[in-house]
Amino acid sequence: MNLDLVRELAVSTDSRIILLVLDGLGGLPMDPFGRTELEAANTPNLDSLAARSDLGLSRPVAAGVSPGSGPGHLALFGYDPLEYEVGRGVLSALGIGFELSENDLAARINFATKDEAGRISDRRAGRIANEEASKLVDLLKENVKLDDAEVFVTHEKEHRAVAVFRAEGLSDALSDSDPQRTGLKPLPVEPTTGAGGAAKKSADLANTFIKEADEILADHHPANTVLLRGFGMHPALPSFDEIYKLRAAAIAGYPMYKGLARLAGMEVLKEGEGIAGEFETLKENWDAFDFFFVHVKPTDAAGEDGDFKRKAAVIEEADALIPEILDLGPAALAVTGDHATPAKMESHSWHGVPFLLFSEYTLPTSERFGERTCAGGSLGVFPAKEIMGLLMGHTLKLNRYGA
Amino acid sequence: MNLDLVRELAVSTDSRIILLVLDGLGGLPMDPFGRTELEAANTPNLDSLAARSDLGLSRPVAAGVSPGSGPGHLALFGYDPLEYEVGRGVLSALGIGFELSENDLAARINFATKDEAGRISDRRAGRIANEEASKLVDLLKENVKLDDAEVFVTHEKEHRAVAVFRAEGLSDALSDSDPQRTGLKPLPVEPTTGAGGAAKKSADLANTFIKEADEILADHHPANTVLLRGFGMHPALPSFDEIYKLRAAAIAGYPMYKGLARLAGMEVLKEGEGIAGEFETLKENWDAFDFFFVHVKPTDAAGEDGDFKRKAAVIEEADALIPEILDLGPAALAVTGDHATPAKMESHSWHGVPFLLFSEYTLPTSERFGERTCAGGSLGVFPAKEIMGLLMGHTLKLNRYGA
Repeated sequence: MNLDLVRELAVSTDSRIILLVLDGLGGLPMDPFGRTELEAANTPNLDSLAARSDLGLSRPVAAGVSPGSGPGHLALFGYDPLEYEVGRGVLSALGIGFELSENDLAARINFATKDEAGRISDRRAGRIANEEASKLVDLLKENVKLDDAEVFVTHEKEHRAVAVFRAEGLSDALSDSDPQRTGLKPLPVEPTTGAGGAAKKSADLANTFIKEADEILADHHPANTVLLRGFGMHPALPSFDEIYKLRAAAIAGYPMYKGLARLAGMEVLKEGEGIAGEFETLKENWDAFDFFFVHVKPTDAAGEDGDFKRKAAVIEEADALIPEILDLGPAALAVTGDHATPAKMESHSWHGVPFLLFSEYTLPTSERFGERTCAGGSLGVFPAKEIMGLLMGHTLKLNRYGA
Repeated sequence: MNLDLVRELAVSTDSRIILLVLDGLGGLPMDPFGRTELEAANTPNLDSLAARSDLGLSRPVAAGVSPGSGPGHLALFGYDPLEYEVGRGVLSALGIGFELSENDLAARINFATKDEAGRISDRRAGRIANEEASKLVDLLKENVKLDDAEVFVTHEKEHRAVAVFRAEGLSDALSDSDPQRTGLKPLPVEPTTGAGGAAKKSADLANTFIKEADEILADHHPANTVLLRGFGMHPALPSFDEIYKLRAAAIAGYPMYKGLARLAGMEVLKEGEGIAGEFETLKENWDAFDFFFVHVKPTDAAGEDGDFKRKAAVIEEADALIPEILDLGPAALAVTGDHATPAKMESHSWHGVPFLLFSEYTLPTSERFGERTCAGGSLGVFPAKEIMGLLMGHTLKLNRYGA
């Protein structure tokens, strides 16, 4: 989406938009002549909605490129995922519910094993157990002291943790300390863009952190060192309010998606239990916002597990609740995913994502919601970053361009 | 395709890709209610493949723009044909099998007729016969001597030949000497970008070449002068190995396509006779490479001749050999063209080119391979420069983008 264009044309109105994201919705037939998860699911409500909707297949990033959750959601929110990047450290911080502020520098920590010669012998410290890692994180929290910055260390899972450095004038233009292979010494963290002051200061902080951690962990073999990688800062995304003039709210069960929504300036609402709980929250807050991002996770989880039937069942569960959403009277409702997670592949993929847009102003092409009806829909195959423009247009929130 | 993105994500794997290009494959019905060449052809193997493939219509350059063979192939190889240009001189040099090195400056030569006042009276010297032109080329070869450069002159066809200047520090930022109309004097070759040293030196070389050729040809009316145009140098294309981490091989019967493949860093294999011979070469080299560009020319030639039936027959010939290709077990096989050459138009055209991608991870939409089934396919209408991204994705040779 051309954000400057939208910013110029956007007007605030009373009508409401719902963007319902079934994570990893896109699928594939398990064998060439079969149906996809969405096609196989029994979805009378989505089908009846499709018969009144525009359909298309959205592409999150680029041909053949499988997106992570970060780029997938940035595209849905209208940000070009190749222009706006969210570092791994930032996503990890968001994933554990850490509320990053604009000056924070985040990095992933791996507990690792160093041999007597100082070479990395295991990049994951034997995938140490959660309980043990959690104790080591507490040790670091108590004992690492940096002169010029605050540092927050939080355990993620097994050998993984997150470090957030807080100070004025930091930069994420930094190389990793992780040498990527065993048998090599860890690398010093270095500025990747010249010898700029901010990157130099940040590299010094990171290297001091590693040095102190090494001393603290010395007797804790196999987790006797840490590797830092994926340095990232809060990306300066223009907010939903500023671009779209929308009071936007997010309803999501997992920290990472709440964090991504917060990056875009959305207010994160307290969700209820499961899909039905999320929809309850939507109803309760209907009057207070004019844009709702509702995130449903279990479609993706089932796809990642290779569980075709469970993914179809989650879709059916969402389908059953569609009438409740329609009862609210949204001016536009989009149902889509942030990427495909075909059960056949047990992973995110590059395939087109089914997209349905219901409003008063649609050109319906099919009475079924599925990958193949979407491919032949009135929107064709199109970039996901255009979705917000479509939603704004269908709710009459964009002025005419030119006379 | 965003080459920086692909370069960042590409990983080398064992699986193999075949890009089968039926030159000028795209067609049109001869009358509005008829079938295209591909639709009319009896193609049981391609149809059965379509039933297990992603389909789409690829657009080589831009809406309404008919591509030459250069841009058509650059797009297939993933290079944006509007960003990477291959000069006519370079294509001519490639077309005659001249192995351009990186310092070479190539230009097209037209033998032409100059009157006593020095004005061009025939820009093609009466389209002199091959034999005669060939003798004049020999005269130029023997007698033109440049102080600061080697020059290679090679006959192409009738009044057309190619000059290649070899020296350090040349530039192709040069205007043509061809005045484009009769009754005008030839133009001096001039630098088109300021008075830069390289362009000035190159213009001087070209003008000296023309002056010497004029003296040598003075008594050879009607071919008593030469016009130079289409100056071009070896375009600095990033190689397949560098971008895609692919060991790429090309199998093509015509010098121009071999040359285009060489520009992309492919190894050109010695092909056998006809389509069957090319496929033999493919089989013989299957273990040594992981990407194969196979070029079939006669589809285009038949289209250029306006011979609908012959074009369909060539497609049928290729179809019959498809099972042999599948027996090799490629992880991905794409069948497409570099542009359309509808028999109805007897020329290259801007129309969409049927595209089929077979892999384990497809969303089939039709049991027929044809322009109209492709238009409704899961890939929709898409830029040809995205094809390499799709092939890389379908063979799991691209890492995930973002976390």
